[in-house]
Amino acid sequence: MEFTRPRGTRDFLFTEMRERKEAESTLRNVFENYGFQEIKTPLFEELKLFTTKSGEEIVDQLYNFKDKSDRELALRPELTAPVARLYLNELQKTTAKPIKLYYYGSCFRYERPQKGRFRQFWQFGCELIGAKSPEGEAEVISMCNESLESLGITPADININHLGIIRGLFAHFNIDTKTQREIMVIIDKGDKELLRESLVGDNPVIDNEELNNVLLNLIDMVGGKEILPDIEKLVKPYDEPQESLAELEELVKTLDSFGVDNYTLNLGVARGLDYYTGIVFEVYIPELGAQKQVCGGGTYSLIKVFGGEEIESTGFAFGFDRLMNAIEELNGEKELKPYLDVFVAPINDETRQKSFEITQTLRKNGIATDVDLNRKKFKKLMNHANNINVGKVVIVGKKDLDEGKVTVKDMNSGDQELVSLDSLVDYIKGEL
Amino acid sequence: MEFTRPRGTRDFLFTEMRERKEAESTLRNVFENYGFQEIKTPLFEELKLFTTKSGEEIVDQLYNFKDKSDRELALRPELTAPVARLYLNELQKTTAKPIKLYYYGSCFRYERPQKGRFRQFWQFGCELIGAKSPEGEAEVISMCNESLESLGITPADININHLGIIRGLFAHFNIDTKTQREIMVIIDKGDKELLRESLVGDNPVIDNEELNNVLLNLIDMVGGKEILPDIEKLVKPYDEPQESLAELEELVKTLDSFGVDNYTLNLGVARGLDYYTGIVFEVYIPELGAQKQVCGGGTYSLIKVFGGEEIESTGFAFGFDRLMNAIEELNGEKELKPYLDVFVAPINDETRQKSFEITQTLRKNGIATDVDLNRKKFKKLMNHANNINVGKVVIVGKKDLDEGKVTVKDMNSGDQELVSLDSLVDYIKGEL
Repeated sequence: MEFTRPRGTRDFLFTEMRERKEAESTLRNVFENYGFQEIKTPLFEELKLFTTKSGEEIVDQLYNFKDKSDRELALRPELTAPVARLYLNELQKTTAKPIKLYYYGSCFRYERPQKGRFRQFWQFGCELIGAKSPEGEAEVISMCNESLESLGITPADININHLGIIRGLFAHFNIDTKTQREIMVIIDKGDKELLRESLVGDNPVIDNEELNNVLLNLIDMVGGKEILPDIEKLVKPYDEPQESLAELEELVKTLDSFGVDNYTLNLGVARGLDYYTGIVFEVYIPELGAQKQVCGGGTYSLIKVFGGEEIESTGFAFGFDRLMNAIEELNGEKELKPYLDVFVAPINDETRQKSFEITQTLRKNGIATDVDLNRKKFKKLMNHANNINVGKVVIVGKKDLDEGKVTVKDMNSGDQELVSLDSLVDYIKGEL
Repeated sequence: MEFTRPRGTRDFLFTEMRERKEAESTLRNVFENYGFQEIKTPLFEELKLFTTKSGEEIVDQLYNFKDKSDRELALRPELTAPVARLYLNELQKTTAKPIKLYYYGSCFRYERPQKGRFRQFWQFGCELIGAKSPEGEAEVISMCNESLESLGITPADININHLGIIRGLFAHFNIDTKTQREIMVIIDKGDKELLRESLVGDNPVIDNEELNNVLLNLIDMVGGKEILPDIEKLVKPYDEPQESLAELEELVKTLDSFGVDNYTLNLGVARGLDYYTGIVFEVYIPELGAQKQVCGGGTYSLIKVFGGEEIESTGFAFGFDRLMNAIEELNGEKELKPYLDVFVAPINDETRQKSFEITQTLRKNGIATDVDLNRKKFKKLMNHANNINVGKVVIVGKKDLDEGKVTVKDMNSGDQELVSLDSLVDYIKGEL
């Protein structure tokens, strides 16, 4: 019988695991430095949690199933909804706001696997619940920026928009919700030609030349804070977007105080979901091609969707697997230090038990040590030590032992030195 | 609409997460010190992987489901089978033996939730593939012992048996496999009265007085290495168990060299599964009551079950949740250091932007810092700082700022000190 890994999933072996854990640890340090604390939710939730947030159509992309008591469950496709559920169940009544939390965990989607898209994937994200805008937004964008810097993903291209501006225009021109949504989906695709065609083609989605022109100009607004006056000029004729523009200006000022200046104002960032209420942002790594988006976030009142109070949250999630791709793409293979410091090799059966004692002494002193567990012949042992790329081999021979000594061989230089057992730990530590 | 966590699952909040991560990190350090390297497999596997290992009856306890292409999948109930699958798929042909790997991840079982038993639970374990006995076994038992010591779970009660002894007796008396299995299940329950009744009651499972007497005496063999002669005396009349006893004696000698002496030889340890071929061991923490077993392991030739070569592996898995219970039970609540070093509090709106700058400077110097993101009144801010249990508050006032200074308040003593902005980082670092 053949056993294979389920389609679209991965095994992570030694080196890849170490690289991933290093990145995890870097992100945890940054997030905790900002006062965020980690939480963990179950791998599966009630199906209705996800359909309530994203609509029934999401079921097609879910791993959903009935448990043995006929409960409708689903492997989580993302972590924002579970975190909102956790907030309602555990934090709403007990914890002073703002609440700063973060998560790291795997998510699942049923879709055709392709390059860079897997059926089990990892997200690393945060939620800042109950802070004011724009300081909450500046805090979170700054943390996102510093995370990318700490991972060596620089310069990070953070694209920021305020959805209130385009929503204000829709409101001014009395565009119904369905049409708004249709336009936002097209904008979200980032295909300007498609948008142009949808607006000014034979079958225009919106029958209003003035609005269509403003929209086409609006999504071309991409640049540093110096483009704020251009945006202002464009939406000045219409009252409704003004307040959102003022909020965006306030965010720009606050980002200055946070020392963040490497962002792009990009009024073509739409994000897919209805529940965003203000600022949205996405981070792109052009080198990753079709999978260039490594982060998405914004401000929303998600808790209300699940029947809680009206409360603003700002959050984002990194696609952790894409971050790993970006690190590799931008920094190349990184030299990891060997996973092992020392290999202990008995020359023959007589020194075997003593080799175990020496091994344990080294380990107790924090030296990562392996020892022959296969009664290999000495020559084979040295080959094995070479294969596993260990720096030092402690050779345990009968004659040396009788004088209270062992031979330490440096596997890079080939040099050997006789070292007394009493000073072995210090000797090895001095060499590491 | 009400949203609840699925039955039998948990959310982990801030403090509990930190405690769990600390334990994870302790275990990783010990395992890596022994030269084991971490791997990760998918959360779900083909259903047949688990039924091949454990029989069709395991399906009742699984979260199994069909994906949208009608593949029969199951959330993994344990990690030994996935690791064997990974070995066959990825390591068998490429990696020199012995292979030392470890894993940490969640597993799932569908059963009635009860105290200490959850539907999503975590296992932390290792496999040593292709080492010789008894050194491989001593290595793994020693690592288990050191893990428990490092977690403060001492003294660890490691119970060791060699299943070859009882199997040798069965062979000597020509007991068929079905009856053997029946007896092993009863022994595994650890209920000596039940065993006595099964053997010498009205309907004896085995109709052989001599064997029954030996079995009843055998499972009473519990103690240090000083009981080895008693075991020898008991099984001396029968040839078949002798080789296994010699292996057990060899293990005892090797454990000496590894510096491990706090174990119990316990011939009543049976473990449930057929695939164990030699040494088995379990660790009990009596203080945990019905859930006292925190670890189980042994030597088996699992790879063969899945169609690979005949190769011995030794491994064990900690029930990570039970370890956490043991830590709490034995050591009580541990004082964690505050998650935050500093809170920055602007006295009023005028000093808000400057407060963000100060916050960022502290963070860039590795000081975990939070800042007001809610435009709270100063008094409320100090209450908030008190609530979140931070040690230092940096108070940013207009007058102080004009002199290039801020006030640092120690929240424990209540002392305040004026500190110049230039020396703030050093001042805080000196106080931490």
